[in-house]
Amino acid sequence: MKAAYYTGNQQFIVKETTPEPLNPGMVRLNVAYCGVCGTDVHIYHGKMDQRVRMPQVIGHEVSGEIAEIGAGVTGWQVGDRVAVRPLQPGIEDPSDNGQRHIGKNLKFIGIDTSGGMQAYWNVPAYTLHRLPDNLSLQLGALAEPLAVACHDVRMSQLKSGENAVIIGGGPIGLLIALVARNRGANILISEPNPIRLALCRSLAIPAVNPLDDDLAKEVEVFTNGAMADVVFEVSGVAAGVQTMTQLVRARGRIVMVAIHSEPKTIDLFRFFWRELQLIGARVYEPEDFDEAIELAASGKLPLDQLVTQISPLDEIQRVFETIDNNPAGMKYLLKCAE
Amino acid sequence: MKAAYYTGNQQFIVKETTPEPLNPGMVRLNVAYCGVCGTDVHIYHGKMDQRVRMPQVIGHEVSGEIAEIGAGVTGWQVGDRVAVRPLQPGIEDPSDNGQRHIGKNLKFIGIDTSGGMQAYWNVPAYTLHRLPDNLSLQLGALAEPLAVACHDVRMSQLKSGENAVIIGGGPIGLLIALVARNRGANILISEPNPIRLALCRSLAIPAVNPLDDDLAKEVEVFTNGAMADVVFEVSGVAAGVQTMTQLVRARGRIVMVAIHSEPKTIDLFRFFWRELQLIGARVYEPEDFDEAIELAASGKLPLDQLVTQISPLDEIQRVFETIDNNPAGMKYLLKCAE
Repeated sequence: MKAAYYTGNQQFIVKETTPEPLNPGMVRLNVAYCGVCGTDVHIYHGKMDQRVRMPQVIGHEVSGEIAEIGAGVTGWQVGDRVAVRPLQPGIEDPSDNGQRHIGKNLKFIGIDTSGGMQAYWNVPAYTLHRLPDNLSLQLGALAEPLAVACHDVRMSQLKSGENAVIIGGGPIGLLIALVARNRGANILISEPNPIRLALCRSLAIPAVNPLDDDLAKEVEVFTNGAMADVVFEVSGVAAGVQTMTQLVRARGRIVMVAIHSEPKTIDLFRFFWRELQLIGARVYEPEDFDEAIELAASGKLPLDQLVTQISPLDEIQRVFETIDNNPAGMKYLLKCAE
Repeated sequence: MKAAYYTGNQQFIVKETTPEPLNPGMVRLNVAYCGVCGTDVHIYHGKMDQRVRMPQVIGHEVSGEIAEIGAGVTGWQVGDRVAVRPLQPGIEDPSDNGQRHIGKNLKFIGIDTSGGMQAYWNVPAYTLHRLPDNLSLQLGALAEPLAVACHDVRMSQLKSGENAVIIGGGPIGLLIALVARNRGANILISEPNPIRLALCRSLAIPAVNPLDDDLAKEVEVFTNGAMADVVFEVSGVAAGVQTMTQLVRARGRIVMVAIHSEPKTIDLFRFFWRELQLIGARVYEPEDFDEAIELAASGKLPLDQLVTQISPLDEIQRVFETIDNNPAGMKYLLKCAE
C-alpha cells in the first residue's frame, strides 16, 4: 500500500509500505479521500515539528470504506462507508469538566498519531460515523470541516433571522456561512481575497472586502443599524480581532474559531460597555458530526463548489506547493484508495 | 441646601444653593447617604473631564427619603425611603437589542447629569426602589454597588457548588464574593493589598496574594484540580487579564467587570483551546436592584463591615484625599441630609 510521509522541511515522500497490525477495538479503513486542512499546511510549514513525529503520515479529513474489523468491534461491517471523527480522548482531567472533545489529554488523530494520507488507515471504531448511501465519498471527506462549522454555529446559539458576520472566507468561514444560512440567519462574509470574494458571491453569499470598505459601516447597512447578533472570527489575524468587537450589537456573541497562536490586543472595554460575549469553539462533538453528515447528504449546501481540486496521493507534494501558491483555493482532496 | 460641586483639578466646593425646580415625572429626594464610587474617584482625578460639566454635583450611590413629588408621579409618597437606580435610558438605538440599561443613548445619572452629593436631589420617579423598613439608610446607600455585584453574578450564571475566583478585592470584588457565597458557590479572592486581604479573611473569605503565591496553583489546590467554573476580572490591570484565562476549567466563564480603558493583550488561543467564555457585565437591570435590596435587608451579608467611614458632606474634599492616600479602604459614605 501507498502512504505519504511528512519528513520535515516542506517535504512529503510517498512510499510503498505494509499496513500496520490491527489492534482490538480498531478498524482498518480503505481511505477514499483525505482533505488537506489548514493545520496540515501548518505542519508542512514546519510550525508543528515539535508535535508530529517525522516521518509521519498526517491528514484527518477522511472518508473511506471499512476493509477489516478488529477484535471486539461490533456494529460495523466490511464495506461500510464512513467518515472519521479524529479525536482520541485521553485520561480525563478534573479541569476538563467532562468536555472530552477538548480534554487536556486528548490526542488529535492525524496530528498526534498517524493520519489518513495513506491507502489503509487503522482508527478506533468509536471514531466512525456512517455515511448515507446518497452521500459521495468525495463530499464525505468534507464531513470533518463541516462538523467544525456545525459546532461553531451550535456554540454561537445562532437563531433563524439573526444577523451573522463571518470574518474570513476560507474553507471554514465559508462552511460556517453555509451552515448559518441553512439555519435561517442573514450572513455576511468579510474576506480580502478577490477570488474567494467571487466564490462567495457565486454562492449568493453577501461579501465585503474589508480592505476596500469599512466593515463596521457595511454591517450597519446590512443590518439596518441593528448590527450583528453573532460574529465568527475565523481570520486569525490582528485586524480581525480589532474589528470583531465593532460589529456586534449589545450582548452580541463573538465566536473565536481561529487559532491565534500569539496573544492579541483586544478591546475589553467594549466587552464591558456593551456586555458582549466571547465564545471559544474548538473541533466538534459527536452530534456535530451527525449534523454535518446529515446536512451534506441533504444536498442543501453547495459543497461540491468548495472542492478546488482532487489529486492522487502520489501528487501530495505538488498539492501542498499549489496550496502555498494559491491562497484563494478552497478544499483540496487527496484520492488515497488503491 | 448644601451641594458639593466638582470644579476640576481634584477640587470640590461645598456651597449653599437652592433646590432645582421639580419637573413632571420627577421626585425630590432628601439625600441621606451617598457612597463614593471608583468612578467618582476617576472623575476627581480629572479622567472624565470631557464627560462631566464642571462645576457639577456628582455621586450616584444614594439612599434617601422622598421630600416632594412631581406632577404625574404615582405610587410614591413623601417620606418613602428609597434607593436610586441611576440610569436614564435615552432613545433606543437599533443595535441596543432592547438592552436599555446599556443603551447607546443611556445617560448615567450623577455622571452625565447632576448627582447625589447634595442635600436635595431631583431624580426621575422610575429610578426609585423602595427600601424596606428593616434596612438602614446607611446600608441602603450600598444598594447600588451591591446591584452591580448581583448583576455580575447573574450574568455569570453561577450555580451553587461551583468554584468562583474574584480577581481584585476592592468594594465590587468583595460584594461579588459575598453574593456568590450567598448563592452557595465556593469563592476565592485574589488581592495584593494586605489590609484588604485581612478584611477578606475576617469575613471568612479565602484570599490569595498573587504577588506572593502562584494564583493558578492556588486555584488548582482550592478546587482539587477542577479549576474555577467562573472568574470575575475586577482588577482592571494587565496582570489580571493575563492570569484570568489560566484559572478556569474547560468551558469556564470569565466575567469582565473591570473597566479596561486601554486595549489589553489577551490569550485568545486559550479561549479557543478550552472553549472559554468571556462575558461582559455592566451596571444592572431593575431585577438586580430588587435582589440587592432584598439581600441587604436580609442581613445575610456583612455589609456594615464594608463601610470604612461615614463623613458629613462638608468634608467631601478630605474624604476624596483620604481615599487617594488609603487604597486599602472600602466604602466611604457622605452624609448629605440636612
